Amino acid sequence: MTVFRLGHRIFRDKRITTHLALVARAFGATGIQIAGEPDEKIIQSVSKVVSEWGGSFTIDFLPYEEWIQFLENWKLTIGKIIHLTMYGENIVEFQKKNDFKKLKTSNEDLNKLLVIVGGEKVPAKVFQFADWNIAITNQPHSEVGSLAIFLEKLVPNSLKIDFPDSKRQIKPSLEGKKKYQNCDEANEKK
Amino acid sequence: MTVFRLGHRIFRDKRITTHLALVARAFGATGIQIAGEPDEKIIQSVSKVVSEWGGSFTIDFLPYEEWIQFLENWKLTIGKIIHLTMYGENIVEFQKKNDFKKLKTSNEDLNKLLVIVGGEKVPAKVFQFADWNIAITNQPHSEVGSLAIFLEKLVPNSLKIDFPDSKRQIKPSLEGKKKYQNCDEANEKK
Repeated sequence: MTVFRLGHRIFRDKRITTHLALVARAFGATGIQIAGEPDEKIIQSVSKVVSEWGGSFTIDFLPYEEWIQFLENWKLTIGKIIHLTMYGENIVEFQKKNDFKKLKTSNEDLNKLLVIVGGEKVPAKVFQFADWNIAITNQPHSEVGSLAIFLEKLVPNSLKIDFPDSKRQIKPSLEGKKKYQNCDEANEKK
Repeated sequence: MTVFRLGHRIFRDKRITTHLALVARAFGATGIQIAGEPDEKIIQSVSKVVSEWGGSFTIDFLPYEEWIQFLENWKLTIGKIIHLTMYGENIVEFQKKNDFKKLKTSNEDLNKLLVIVGGEKVPAKVFQFADWNIAITNQPHSEVGSLAIFLEKLVPNSLKIDFPDSKRQIKPSLEGKKKYQNCDEANEKK
């Protein structure tokens, strides 16, 4: 699926939007679309992670005011839209109704999903565009935390995704020491 | 449990540390301890959320260099330490071994837990202090996302915690409209 970040101001949001992009990648999204100020530094830092840690995650910006057009187009030509918002239906109720099964019927369907994470002020129209407004708790906290929890539940095997073509991989250890498996070296030894 | 944020620089980290504090509160931590530059603005914005949305979450700073003393003291006089790190044991393996049950035997035990979330460079000694080094995926992403997922799994009913003494509560709705339940009014009507 694709993550849609609605709103990005370079000065204020650079780290939060970077975290959103990296969470999106780590938990299996194919890319992030950001409606806001184009930010070369975020593109660079996310691309660096992709190049070192593998996979083919994409990051793209569009002007803020084009968000309506983007969402309209998604609904008409691609698929469903989920909006993560503290005002939505609590994810526990959403899961009870088995709505995750509807979303997860096939990988193809997952690719057609758009997951919106907004900033502080989300236009009322976003709530109407969304097929589902889902709340990860109904308390104020963090769009980064909400996205991580939602994708962890949505994507199969999300906590242990293997990314192809990685230069670095961690060998997990109880002691948590910084052990890498250098994939280039590993491949050369084969 | 208490969350321990290791490292905070006002300019660079203000929003990430604020998100960490709000995630900690929303998912049931009793407070956050921050080792780094004291930051009055974060204290104010977190206190505002607590005053409006309820509960009794605490936020405290200590000088960065006192982190060793703090962790030593926690281990000696309070309880166990968990360190969230991409280099640790993947949480899927941790759960397979039922280690969550060990942590969750009673509320009293939960209160004795310290959950460390670091910044970019975590001193090697932190890994040794920790009773468990746990990885929320072994990919680089976000300490905010890691904390949210970990607390969601650790704390009972974490996605629907009710906070006492709240001035505002959301009435969750499928349409995600911004409906509040004003608790003062509700209480007056009783």
